[in-house]
Amino acid sequence: MEAKELKRTTRSRLKRLPKRGHYDFETMVAILDAGFLCHVGYVVDGAPLVTPTAYWREGRRVYWHGSHASRMLTTAATGVPVCLTVAHVDGLVMARSAFHFSVNYRSAMLFGNARMVEDIDEKKAALKEFVNRMASGRWDQLRAVTRKELKATTVLWMDIDEGSAKVRTGAPIDDEDDYALPIWAGVVPIRMVADKPVDDPRLDGKAKAPGVLADLSHLGLAPK
Amino acid sequence: MEAKELKRTTRSRLKRLPKRGHYDFETMVAILDAGFLCHVGYVVDGAPLVTPTAYWREGRRVYWHGSHASRMLTTAATGVPVCLTVAHVDGLVMARSAFHFSVNYRSAMLFGNARMVEDIDEKKAALKEFVNRMASGRWDQLRAVTRKELKATTVLWMDIDEGSAKVRTGAPIDDEDDYALPIWAGVVPIRMVADKPVDDPRLDGKAKAPGVLADLSHLGLAPK
Repeated sequence: MEAKELKRTTRSRLKRLPKRGHYDFETMVAILDAGFLCHVGYVVDGAPLVTPTAYWREGRRVYWHGSHASRMLTTAATGVPVCLTVAHVDGLVMARSAFHFSVNYRSAMLFGNARMVEDIDEKKAALKEFVNRMASGRWDQLRAVTRKELKATTVLWMDIDEGSAKVRTGAPIDDEDDYALPIWAGVVPIRMVADKPVDDPRLDGKAKAPGVLADLSHLGLAPK
Repeated sequence: MEAKELKRTTRSRLKRLPKRGHYDFETMVAILDAGFLCHVGYVVDGAPLVTPTAYWREGRRVYWHGSHASRMLTTAATGVPVCLTVAHVDGLVMARSAFHFSVNYRSAMLFGNARMVEDIDEKKAALKEFVNRMASGRWDQLRAVTRKELKATTVLWMDIDEGSAKVRTGAPIDDEDDYALPIWAGVVPIRMVADKPVDDPRLDGKAKAPGVLADLSHLGLAPK
């Protein structure tokens, strides 16, 4: 049976505000599955490099487009150390004192080694998953992917194994004495919204936007 | 006179899709000023650590809340190497082939050394800037910050000096032959939206939400 808990290590265990931490696979996956943009950190010449990129999850793995790492990976068969972070902002938390100002968020941090998808069929399957997540069933409607294109695409993956999730929800937490003050406090809710699809100007009415694009809530995108 | 261009170095110069790169201070600042959440990368025990956090800009510096780095910084007077990245997603770019699927975005990547704000008055001024950016003029209406709170807050900064911006806008770029195909292509626009402020349940009508919260467009947040 597969572990239901992520590995707690020195680096994955939350030091600050440990009450906000979660280490169960379910919470981790819920956060990963509610987005499509991650930030991946690499170490290059001893210094950090953080690159934003599209990601998707399948089972116990996260996949992403990772051209940045491709040169590093050609020399490291066992993979290169990465930290993959996803953060969804849900609100600005405005307290009665500056010290308690905060942000409502759901974040996920994964540690491990990035590896390249080398097998061409495996890469094709991974990209199919990526496209169909953006627009359900779209892969089969597109011009078929070529071998040359597959070779030119770098897909990386890492295990969902070591990491943590962090969640803050709800109202500000003020100092008890401050609640009596006549100062407004509350939350400004924040959402990512998908607007109506805009046709490519060169489409010339040759096709209509797929109906599935009206609901992208599985990507964490509310409709307009 | 201050430089109008960011330093182009081996790591800051774009290798992939260099046409999307910008190195002018103006573009960098416009991207930084259109958000409030960044991802900061550190190197801890030789491995990368990427942490999402609130940031703000003042002149040629970026500031952020950085408790993660505080232990590292107590032993490094000259600062620790960081990569600070900001990414705004503007749309899902759906092409006629999977290979040309993309994302419209504006991203900024800064390299340099993080330092702690040590001086207590300087820290106070930085936090005032942070709060007033969230809600204009709010600082003076809050319960005053204490010396103890200031000491307990870690504010980091780095220079806006070495880095690059990357921008993709507009329709999909398909292979010329593919434009004739009867396949839909276009962009699903994406925005971050701020909804109406929600009162803290413990407010009990003691105050009203400040009017300035109705327009948070300077944080990259469209109104509902």
